[in-house]
Amino acid sequence: MRATYLFGAGDVRVVDVPDASIEESTDAVVRVVRACICGSDLHPFHGAEASVDGIPIGHESIGVVEAVGADAHTIAVGDFVVVPFGWSDGTCQFCREGLHTSCEHGGWIGVGGNGGAQAEALRVPQADGTLVVVPGVDESSELLPSLLTLADVFGTGWHAAAQARVQEGDTVAVIGDGAVGLLAVLSAKLLGVERIILMGRHRARTDLGVEFGATDVVAERDAEGIAKVLELVGPAGGVHKVLEAVGHKPGYDQAVGILRPGGVISRVGVPQYEEAGVGFMSLFGKNATLTGGPAPVRAYADRLLPLVLDGTVDPGRVFDRTIGLDDVPAGYRAMDDREALKVLISF
Amino acid sequence: MRATYLFGAGDVRVVDVPDASIEESTDAVVRVVRACICGSDLHPFHGAEASVDGIPIGHESIGVVEAVGADAHTIAVGDFVVVPFGWSDGTCQFCREGLHTSCEHGGWIGVGGNGGAQAEALRVPQADGTLVVVPGVDESSELLPSLLTLADVFGTGWHAAAQARVQEGDTVAVIGDGAVGLLAVLSAKLLGVERIILMGRHRARTDLGVEFGATDVVAERDAEGIAKVLELVGPAGGVHKVLEAVGHKPGYDQAVGILRPGGVISRVGVPQYEEAGVGFMSLFGKNATLTGGPAPVRAYADRLLPLVLDGTVDPGRVFDRTIGLDDVPAGYRAMDDREALKVLISF
Repeated sequence: MRATYLFGAGDVRVVDVPDASIEESTDAVVRVVRACICGSDLHPFHGAEASVDGIPIGHESIGVVEAVGADAHTIAVGDFVVVPFGWSDGTCQFCREGLHTSCEHGGWIGVGGNGGAQAEALRVPQADGTLVVVPGVDESSELLPSLLTLADVFGTGWHAAAQARVQEGDTVAVIGDGAVGLLAVLSAKLLGVERIILMGRHRARTDLGVEFGATDVVAERDAEGIAKVLELVGPAGGVHKVLEAVGHKPGYDQAVGILRPGGVISRVGVPQYEEAGVGFMSLFGKNATLTGGPAPVRAYADRLLPLVLDGTVDPGRVFDRTIGLDDVPAGYRAMDDREALKVLISF
Repeated sequence: MRATYLFGAGDVRVVDVPDASIEESTDAVVRVVRACICGSDLHPFHGAEASVDGIPIGHESIGVVEAVGADAHTIAVGDFVVVPFGWSDGTCQFCREGLHTSCEHGGWIGVGGNGGAQAEALRVPQADGTLVVVPGVDESSELLPSLLTLADVFGTGWHAAAQARVQEGDTVAVIGDGAVGLLAVLSAKLLGVERIILMGRHRARTDLGVEFGATDVVAERDAEGIAKVLELVGPAGGVHKVLEAVGHKPGYDQAVGILRPGGVISRVGVPQYEEAGVGFMSLFGKNATLTGGPAPVRAYADRLLPLVLDGTVDPGRVFDRTIGLDDVPAGYRAMDDREALKVLISF
């Protein structure tokens, strides 16, 4: 089959590899119908070590189940499914608590040599616990782009808002106008927030953010961005909640700078730093709370899928370019050059 | 009057200074009946720059109101009061939300040149919002030590537990066997927690911690301490909540190491570091939440004072030595040498 592999920094190729197949009795094999390129794919795209064999990449997909292992009982061949970016057994203590990304038998699609989703098919471990069956949908559905966002970016934006416990009456700032940031805006809006400040400077993206519910857009960054937000909220002294959807250190410092005493910073952008300010001058002095992490998108599917199916929301609008599998290398470059917000791969 | 001043590292003296007096119309002057030495006083005791004039020190006291300014209306001369370690107006947006330590007109007793509490009297700004009147108590009460803990350490231990949202069913670890750590144990117990692991290695203190509700004591530190706690909790994979009551970096790293995925680290020990691990390998990867800060002990007085008055709890047991004002320098040394857990000053 054809699959996308990363051979080093900037060197992504679509190559022939052995077909995905059942390896464990709890696996399923999914024929990919739609996949996409994630902002977080750009991190290894920038920094991967050169490798002769390459590593599979991609972690967001929807498709049709082609095969199931002997111990997969709730998934059947022919099911149309969303494949969350992490797999999970659905039964361990963490899954039962809704934290599927800490599953005791879990792992990550397209990371560390596991089959990637930017491919014609992929093996999905722990199929029963992982896959989200979407009844009544087939490959011709107009909902495919929005369904695909349930594999990662919609659930991740939702996680930012949910972990921050955003609520009516909060002023919320979202840092980052990528797909996750925009869907964090949408999530905050769904959760009843009226004042949403989107920090981003790509006009086409922030315009979509406004359609999703942002009431203010701040294009400035760093100290200027902080000053602008503080000016916007005036005597409140900062925003109640910050949803950080980038993962770079300046975004963290910006979050600290605009946060109101007693507020919450919820991070879903994978941190590209390990240490940051947490002392009296950053978090402690103002009783700030820092939360977030890899989103258990599987946990949120039950709540978000109906909103997609009934048309309440249209998160698939974050895709602004559609390509075929062979064009994936060009898709990476388009996202890296910020010519495209998020690239959909159609098979 | 006589007051305790710090003149440099290790150089604490009781000196004659002008009497405390009303400076703002919202002030009160409190004649101190009991004060004490705090673990956090040891930080400037270790690190203060040499100074000819010295700076007042001490932030925990109870006493009798001697004078009130023209705009203090709810406090009267003769009232017996607890003086929280921070002052606050009680009316700003943050006070109304219970975050008195971020009061828009607030400040800290005994910090930055403000009159200290290890003195015969002190000026208390924002008297109406700050002082907690204790009806029916006078200088002869046996409850004085426990009432004094409401000025800081009991409210601070409570804050650790409250911010972590500890609840029945949680396994909670408390890092630090100082007064705040022990009262964090007591607070967790009051909030219904059954399994409380106290990390500390001073036997007399941890014994008191066991009386307050600790079910396990771990004397080991760092990697050994982490391994011991993980062994104790077994398949749970860590503790649900960590209450960090020390403020040194190794305590932070220990908290991260013993935390269960999805858990909460609540800090009330004033951090003696600014940067710490918050990335994928520390907080983010396991969706940990970091919270805490200076405790709004004024907010908790309404809930905790009745428990002291009716004898439900006896937090004053953390005091294991009583001295007079002139012996305060020796009291600092006793705490610094860990000969005393917490030193009470009787006037």
